[in-house]
Amino acid sequence: MAKNKSIETLKNRLREIAYFTSISAILHWDQEVHMPKKAIEYRAKTMAEISAIIHQKFTALDHDKLLTNLKNEIPEGKYSDEEESLILECWRDYSLETKLPEDHVRAVSELSSKAHHYWIEARKQSDFSLFLPCLEKTIALQKKTAEYLGYEKSPYDALLDIYEPGMTTEKALVILNDVKDFLVPFLAKIKKSKIKIDSKKLFGKFPIDEQIVFNRFVAEKLGYDLDAGKIDASTHPFTITFHQTDVRITTRYKTEDVLYSLGSTIHETGHALYEQGLIGNDFGTPLGQAISLGIHESQSRMWENNIGKSLEFWKYFYPKLQKAFPVPYKKVPLQEFYSIINKVTPSLIRTEADEVTYNLHIILRFEIEKELIEGTLLAKDAPKVWNEKMKKYFGVTVPNDRLGILQDVHWSGGSFGYFPTYSFGNLYSAQFYAAMLKDIPDLTIRFAKGDFVAAREWLRKKIHVHGKRYTASELVLEVTGEPLSSKYFQDYLTEKYSKIYNLKNK
Amino acid sequence: MAKNKSIETLKNRLREIAYFTSISAILHWDQEVHMPKKAIEYRAKTMAEISAIIHQKFTALDHDKLLTNLKNEIPEGKYSDEEESLILECWRDYSLETKLPEDHVRAVSELSSKAHHYWIEARKQSDFSLFLPCLEKTIALQKKTAEYLGYEKSPYDALLDIYEPGMTTEKALVILNDVKDFLVPFLAKIKKSKIKIDSKKLFGKFPIDEQIVFNRFVAEKLGYDLDAGKIDASTHPFTITFHQTDVRITTRYKTEDVLYSLGSTIHETGHALYEQGLIGNDFGTPLGQAISLGIHESQSRMWENNIGKSLEFWKYFYPKLQKAFPVPYKKVPLQEFYSIINKVTPSLIRTEADEVTYNLHIILRFEIEKELIEGTLLAKDAPKVWNEKMKKYFGVTVPNDRLGILQDVHWSGGSFGYFPTYSFGNLYSAQFYAAMLKDIPDLTIRFAKGDFVAAREWLRKKIHVHGKRYTASELVLEVTGEPLSSKYFQDYLTEKYSKIYNLKNK
Repeated sequence: MAKNKSIETLKNRLREIAYFTSISAILHWDQEVHMPKKAIEYRAKTMAEISAIIHQKFTALDHDKLLTNLKNEIPEGKYSDEEESLILECWRDYSLETKLPEDHVRAVSELSSKAHHYWIEARKQSDFSLFLPCLEKTIALQKKTAEYLGYEKSPYDALLDIYEPGMTTEKALVILNDVKDFLVPFLAKIKKSKIKIDSKKLFGKFPIDEQIVFNRFVAEKLGYDLDAGKIDASTHPFTITFHQTDVRITTRYKTEDVLYSLGSTIHETGHALYEQGLIGNDFGTPLGQAISLGIHESQSRMWENNIGKSLEFWKYFYPKLQKAFPVPYKKVPLQEFYSIINKVTPSLIRTEADEVTYNLHIILRFEIEKELIEGTLLAKDAPKVWNEKMKKYFGVTVPNDRLGILQDVHWSGGSFGYFPTYSFGNLYSAQFYAAMLKDIPDLTIRFAKGDFVAAREWLRKKIHVHGKRYTASELVLEVTGEPLSSKYFQDYLTEKYSKIYNLKNK
Repeated sequence: MAKNKSIETLKNRLREIAYFTSISAILHWDQEVHMPKKAIEYRAKTMAEISAIIHQKFTALDHDKLLTNLKNEIPEGKYSDEEESLILECWRDYSLETKLPEDHVRAVSELSSKAHHYWIEARKQSDFSLFLPCLEKTIALQKKTAEYLGYEKSPYDALLDIYEPGMTTEKALVILNDVKDFLVPFLAKIKKSKIKIDSKKLFGKFPIDEQIVFNRFVAEKLGYDLDAGKIDASTHPFTITFHQTDVRITTRYKTEDVLYSLGSTIHETGHALYEQGLIGNDFGTPLGQAISLGIHESQSRMWENNIGKSLEFWKYFYPKLQKAFPVPYKKVPLQEFYSIINKVTPSLIRTEADEVTYNLHIILRFEIEKELIEGTLLAKDAPKVWNEKMKKYFGVTVPNDRLGILQDVHWSGGSFGYFPTYSFGNLYSAQFYAAMLKDIPDLTIRFAKGDFVAAREWLRKKIHVHGKRYTASELVLEVTGEPLSSKYFQDYLTEKYSKIYNLKNK
């Protein structure tokens, strides 16, 4: 009885905090989607007020040693696996929140506002030197963060672990090098292929309100519950959870390209399905939270790519798309459409990259940020290294800083260690997808018939409902029977793109 | 110096509370405009959490007697007029918040949820008896509220004073009887007029997205700053302020009638201009708050009616409306359009009533709710009285309870004393408008040219910027040189409607 009471007390404290994280999320969502521009200053203050309450309540979580005692009792075997996960994940969150001194957190936050401003200006002028001083300070603060958090081998470990618990620089290097060693020659082969794909055919004029209707139809068909969610528009699409009963996504629209919105919508729907699949009763506790950014990304990328860019998916949706937008789709056969949406084009920017080149973008930045944090590369030399790697991995020449090293917001926000989770997501996704295909042999036949229930339920049962009951590596082992490897990703790309580009595999 | 320090402490405490009232407003807005339906339960809990914080912080406002001391020091003449207003208005708010015991507040809130449910059911079935038990309990609780708050003559005074500080039942009776004595015969005259107006001509098919564009255009032209505001859609239009830099309105759309949305938009724009005209530095304190519901309503009604239903207003906007929606407007001349939008039709429901009959709806309910609270009328007899008054004032027979006594949500929510503020709004509005016309002789010529700046700036300078530095009666005296009277309203209606209905005035 005593143990249950402590666990209940802990859960209640966490739920209490959850009201405020939920409010913070609502304010954030509103800021991105609706807020008029003059409100920025007052909103920032309101956000700070809520953040302070969350921080205060979180640091008070263990004021009476409740959490410490629970943690110390674990070796006594008093707790179930689930309770153990709860305690340990709480402890992890609590440590992250309390290991960083308040003035450091404030310094990071203040620099990030400033750096964001300088990044925008530098990008506008395509001049890295304008951003350099802020970047140097950001790196210095990130190194300090790593020192506060502690690490075994590399300071980058500490940062990586924030976003992908359990991941180390060493493990990431091994697996991402594998990916790179596969991708660089694979991309070269595709570039040499005689198959040339003309993607301009798919452009047209698609009224936004009709796009909205079609996006909604697809998202609902995949299982996104719009009675517990909503689709809005924002510059950068995102998924945000206020509660399991209120998981919203945003997408973006281009009049000339309905696939632009659709890709984002399907991606975010993947995230939303994960969030809606968590258990309501666990809300606010780690048991009701996604495992890691990488696992989250595996869900979005699976729906976006493994499923959403498959021929079978479009066997079902393409006739609907043709009906909704007869110009230009009526004149483009499904097989050609399929080739076009999977066209591989080495490009300068990650965000709209195809499945093949996408991870090279991640690996490139990962290698650079790892060196910046470890001190083996100076910030001032980063653009040169960036451009060299772009040439080496993609065969692409970077014309200027704006399209090169300044392209992405992450560094200005102080998010070092975040980027690799995008690649982990793709690798997890391929490995999970292979396991799902094994469990449901007629999966793709179902897709072609418009049945996405089996896939969603498999993901729900195998991944979503568990929350943080497993760590990422435990989950991968549990679901796929082996640790994370890039093999499934390589196999997936090889099979799919060999067909599309008619590659001979020796 | 000492006095400034206490005032500053008070202001800081109030601003601290304002973050949370602002958050509460955002949650409320989201709930009305965006929230998916399954989120209702969790959102209610989150709202309760924020309300509790606000209540807690508000009741702690005087924990060290800061406010009491400030109030006691007023007779010493230490404080400026502005500071005196700040202290007294704070004291008023604080008293309202603390005079009501928590269990009473909870009882009112619980009954209101329940009564709302029963009201909806009773309305659906058009059966007052289903609502009667809740109404009886609501009246009993409202009487208790009056006892807690205290009053001199009538318990209805205490309720009235919540929404319209300084107003008494006696004063309201005098002024509203004046209005009634004018309106009943005036309406009879209009009904006898030979001028018959056919309003069906204005219906058409107006795509919502085009309506949105036109509504936005009008609101901005009147001076609503959309960089510090936003127009959304909701079932019941409302204005909500998160901060002076973020004042949002909602409107509603009917495909067949663009004037339906436009009327609401202009009304809410009037509210929004008041809120945007308050001084940012005063935010969170009474000095940055609107005086009363009546004064607020004077702003919305002035833009909606005195300005927004004038011929000169439409001299400017009508060609634009005709261009945006050539069918049906191209075929309707301005003068006829003007008559149609001002058509007087005794109807059963307040919400879409014309300027002439509108106040009779208010007076009718005011007379009944006054008697219910004073105990001279039993709730069970209210429908009979309602129907009799409808016959007497409007010449209209009420076919059933749904269209009669059950038409309006206010009583179910426990809002007794709220309704008369709608009429005060119209009276203030007419009196202010007369003063504005005196100050700006070419005002209506300006309207015809699309210049609404002079009107907005006059209202801003004379009314908005003051916040609660004046009470409602002080403000009316200050701005118009005399106390509130129904004379200006009577003159305004007489002049306008005599022309439209070709009435002979003896």
